[in-house]
Amino acid sequence: MKRVRVGALMVLFALIPAASAEPVSDWRDVDPQNLVLIDTKYGQVAVELAPEFAPKHVARLRALIRAHFYDGLSFYRVIDGFVAQGGIGEGTASTKDHPVETTDLSKWPALKAEFDRASKPDPVFTPLGNADLMAPEVGFENGFAVARDPAEHREWLIHCPGTFAFARDNDPDTATTEFYIVIGEAPRRLDRDLTAFGRVLSGMQYLQKLERGDPEIDNGVIADASKRDPIIRVRIASDLRAAERPAYQVIRTESKTFADAVESRRHPTSPFYFRKPPPVLDICGVPVAVKRTAP
Amino acid sequence: MKRVRVGALMVLFALIPAASAEPVSDWRDVDPQNLVLIDTKYGQVAVELAPEFAPKHVARLRALIRAHFYDGLSFYRVIDGFVAQGGIGEGTASTKDHPVETTDLSKWPALKAEFDRASKPDPVFTPLGNADLMAPEVGFENGFAVARDPAEHREWLIHCPGTFAFARDNDPDTATTEFYIVIGEAPRRLDRDLTAFGRVLSGMQYLQKLERGDPEIDNGVIADASKRDPIIRVRIASDLRAAERPAYQVIRTESKTFADAVESRRHPTSPFYFRKPPPVLDICGVPVAVKRTAP
Repeated sequence: MKRVRVGALMVLFALIPAASAEPVSDWRDVDPQNLVLIDTKYGQVAVELAPEFAPKHVARLRALIRAHFYDGLSFYRVIDGFVAQGGIGEGTASTKDHPVETTDLSKWPALKAEFDRASKPDPVFTPLGNADLMAPEVGFENGFAVARDPAEHREWLIHCPGTFAFARDNDPDTATTEFYIVIGEAPRRLDRDLTAFGRVLSGMQYLQKLERGDPEIDNGVIADASKRDPIIRVRIASDLRAAERPAYQVIRTESKTFADAVESRRHPTSPFYFRKPPPVLDICGVPVAVKRTAP
Repeated sequence: MKRVRVGALMVLFALIPAASAEPVSDWRDVDPQNLVLIDTKYGQVAVELAPEFAPKHVARLRALIRAHFYDGLSFYRVIDGFVAQGGIGEGTASTKDHPVETTDLSKWPALKAEFDRASKPDPVFTPLGNADLMAPEVGFENGFAVARDPAEHREWLIHCPGTFAFARDNDPDTATTEFYIVIGEAPRRLDRDLTAFGRVLSGMQYLQKLERGDPEIDNGVIADASKRDPIIRVRIASDLRAAERPAYQVIRTESKTFADAVESRRHPTSPFYFRKPPPVLDICGVPVAVKRTAP
């Protein structure tokens, strides 16, 4: 007796359109200048940057990557259900192979925060179409989940699973080199209080394999540096030779294809739903489809 | 120059009270009859069952475990950011070591759905204290995240990261043996449409290491059975000898200690928050503290 009991959740993937079904123009090529490739021992994580939201942070990250700053450092603070944080780490324990003495941090002065930006009458912003618990308005811009405050004319990237951001000290203007990636339930309370400027396009499952710290001990920092998973190397796709350069496309969130996908998620027609869910979506639970086109 | 740039998120763990600070009565012992131990090759996952929400499903799960039904089966459908599903699997590929022919599924007839239950004037229910996107009211009962509809006098367990539930076919009354555990952003659209009856107390990081399927291929089922991570064995803590029995305590969600923790999360006082977050919490983002007390 072969029973298929997995039909349950099939509709969730109706959001990923069949490659042959939609117009080519529904997909946007990811600019290789904005495509960051983080090699872990479990696999490669691809992150798309959003320079329009945080130009100084993007410029800093590119400079750090091109200086090979991260290569050989580690994910030294990884809290299950929350974030994976990487970089030089706290103190010297993480810097065995990159002694602090030889890492000239004076080259990387603290950045002015870029928590939000002026929102413009932007035809690319696509409202989600329902309320949000944390922000006056939420939607998508170029595939990124974005919140807006119309009264203040400001907008910012939302902390969803996969969001890429820079850590900082208590002072807002203190980010320098350390990054984190959200690996758990959207920590929306961090929105507009840290500079978020990218999102993972693929490889979340590799981040989920990272060795965890204990959140009750030293705020999740893994004390034993030998247990930390290394950041093998970080590159910008545009620095790779064309033949070996990964390429991604992201669904255009202003397209009808995406709007239709959101609406089918909001009003699922599958008979699986005995009770139709409330027609309300969590901005961080709406997949924004990605496909890898090369190599 | 040793910079500490991880202070950022320390306040998130203020919810876990120091062991010495709170009255003993703020903690509830987990009943070993309700404590399920799932051994994976990465480590042990501990799940607390909520028989008061789904007595038939809990009875079925206990019977399956005591029949060693799951031992040697696999997590055959694991979708990053969504669920890890385990059991006999789809078709024969998953049942190499437990051929379908020798697994008498007629012993496990389909269960009547237990999607929700009558809500009673229950002094144990503690409202979260703010609105929810998906349900008229949300809060906690015995450490479980619960939604209520006062108009219908019904309540149900919420699908948060770590929620344990039974899968089913399209017909509501078709759950038999297959379980899933939420490993991603809360899939609230499944609330009250599947029978949820437990939550992970510890070991989420081991579930996060499970080999993933491709959601675009066969709905996330891992076709190559040799790549699926095994369910090594599943036991009920009360079946272990006392000396080797793990024991857990959960913060009493009706206690003042918990209420205070929720309020400090809602109104963080840490200077880290340049801009205080909106005083609104996601029910699935509120930690319900757990401690292991033995062995």
